[in-house]
Amino acid sequence: PSSSSSREIQFRSPDTPFKSHYRDDIETMMFDLQDKICDTISEIDGGSFHEDQWQRPNDGGGGRSRVLQHGNVIEKGGVNVSVIHGTLPASAVKQMKARGKDIFGEDLPFYVTGVSLVIHPRNPHAPTVHANFRFFEVLCKDPKTGDEKLVWWFGGGTDLTPHYLYDEDARHFHSVLKNACDKFGEQGMYGAYKKWCDEYFWISHRNEARGVGGIFFDDLEDLPSYSQEKNESNEEAKQRQKRCLDFVKGVGDSFLSAYIPILSRRKNMPYNFDQQRWQKLRHGRYVEFNLVHDRGTKFGLATPGSRIESILMSLPLTASWEYCHEPDRGSEEERLLQVLKNPKDWVETDH
Amino acid sequence: PSSSSSREIQFRSPDTPFKSHYRDDIETMMFDLQDKICDTISEIDGGSFHEDQWQRPNDGGGGRSRVLQHGNVIEKGGVNVSVIHGTLPASAVKQMKARGKDIFGEDLPFYVTGVSLVIHPRNPHAPTVHANFRFFEVLCKDPKTGDEKLVWWFGGGTDLTPHYLYDEDARHFHSVLKNACDKFGEQGMYGAYKKWCDEYFWISHRNEARGVGGIFFDDLEDLPSYSQEKNESNEEAKQRQKRCLDFVKGVGDSFLSAYIPILSRRKNMPYNFDQQRWQKLRHGRYVEFNLVHDRGTKFGLATPGSRIESILMSLPLTASWEYCHEPDRGSEEERLLQVLKNPKDWVETDH
Repeated sequence: PSSSSSREIQFRSPDTPFKSHYRDDIETMMFDLQDKICDTISEIDGGSFHEDQWQRPNDGGGGRSRVLQHGNVIEKGGVNVSVIHGTLPASAVKQMKARGKDIFGEDLPFYVTGVSLVIHPRNPHAPTVHANFRFFEVLCKDPKTGDEKLVWWFGGGTDLTPHYLYDEDARHFHSVLKNACDKFGEQGMYGAYKKWCDEYFWISHRNEARGVGGIFFDDLEDLPSYSQEKNESNEEAKQRQKRCLDFVKGVGDSFLSAYIPILSRRKNMPYNFDQQRWQKLRHGRYVEFNLVHDRGTKFGLATPGSRIESILMSLPLTASWEYCHEPDRGSEEERLLQVLKNPKDWVETDH
Repeated sequence: PSSSSSREIQFRSPDTPFKSHYRDDIETMMFDLQDKICDTISEIDGGSFHEDQWQRPNDGGGGRSRVLQHGNVIEKGGVNVSVIHGTLPASAVKQMKARGKDIFGEDLPFYVTGVSLVIHPRNPHAPTVHANFRFFEVLCKDPKTGDEKLVWWFGGGTDLTPHYLYDEDARHFHSVLKNACDKFGEQGMYGAYKKWCDEYFWISHRNEARGVGGIFFDDLEDLPSYSQEKNESNEEAKQRQKRCLDFVKGVGDSFLSAYIPILSRRKNMPYNFDQQRWQKLRHGRYVEFNLVHDRGTKFGLATPGSRIESILMSLPLTASWEYCHEPDRGSEEERLLQVLKNPKDWVETDH
């Protein structure tokens, strides 16, 4: 499909005084995934993504944002790749340490690349989907010895937010993700990451989940069945990064198989005004989660020089808040709420 | 006008082991102000407010919430009184200390009452308005001497958020507030509180103000031309509270004169789809401020047992986010944005 988007990446990948083994491959993976996802969504919609390439002020990297708005199938969808480097804000260091990250020193140089997407379809029967895959590098410096150490990790995941609950959709989404995890021969990754997802996308002030979940992981420095050596060789460190990269690539590549069949079977279902109204109320909850709780959004909004439009691209075109709205007893809307309040397992897990 | 609202307050004002001189009068003032404002808005709209009286779980007070939704003039409006007591969350104590509040000890018993309102009219030419008046009491205990000290203060203000800028409206709103401040014979209160308002309602991630401001004050323990004695007598403390109460009452009573003439002259202006679309985009910014920056909202969402529907009553019925929306050059929409990015003085100040 014709599109205003471009394969050319106009900003140069940054020169930093540090660089882990597979950084170039990881960066390429992010842009490739963006291409593949945008091509597929664009084909289904019939409309094309609008592309913006942007740079951070003071040369701290940039990004390639693509948005499809007012489409035939997609009300608003954004797929964004960014490649950012600079010095970590103190608040970010504090937060990373608080969740157990082994980083030390002050004014830490960092590099991060990631792809992030949110697709809000028009049809209330078609669920919103979110995915994000990211890779961090932080150069730490021991204040006593002066030794430098490059710490890196992956994070990511994808989750589904239906406005009307179709059990078969939730089961399909989760089983594709489970297969993607299981391919790496690892025990319990899907189960652990499914649980993490339910915990992360929890709207605590509403006491309900954002959607029916998926998987979420962070601080991934190796696959769980390998144990990191205290003094690993350069070659071991390289292999370790390759294992993680393959896993993240595997999950990333499974995204379209997880989501597209659902979008295809829901996009042309008939719907009425009341169902659209309910969709907008659920969009309101999506906004609440993203602005009040989402770590990535908060990190972005607090980082000087970040591109606000790319961060808030995740918000729906229209959201609504009605005072004390409650769905009718026995309705489909009420059934969704009950599941959101009590997240369930959609496929059997190993543990 | 007939209304489902009630003069009866079903929950009892709390018995606490502490109580400052005019607490009962202050509480009454909050409920009276709610009555007066709801009556006036209801008369203009032709519709009536829906009332909910609610209690906090575990007997920590309650409130009287009133909402007018889908009205003739008002798209969504909420006026809420709450009377809350309990033990201050540690995060709240920390925040109060950070802004210089002289409180000490742990697990501090507190009492707070306040009236809070947001009115979102249907017509894009009619501005949204917000007002809040609140009164805090905290019983501190010196960890060394064991001496108890009752610390109290008032806070409040009101601010205007137009979607289309009418200079005469902004001037009217500010001049009524200035007169209300000036009545107390105090130099510079309006000027200081106007500045505070511009600073408080600042959407830092957008680098723009929420609206054209008004006044905002907090930690008010006396009028500025009085100097508090180190060892004030009981009678002096009482007079000091009376002076503050009179000031807050004066400002509260001026609210209707500040807002209603503006609502009256804008509510029936013709408007088109594009203007309504712009209104919804500005509603999006309102949501961003309230969920990301507003101290009161964040305090509420983080307080266990708080009533979410009363806190988020402030959100508009419908809000919209379009990627990279920019108003046309030379348009009214652009003129508004320019003023929001560079807050201006609407009436002459003394200093």
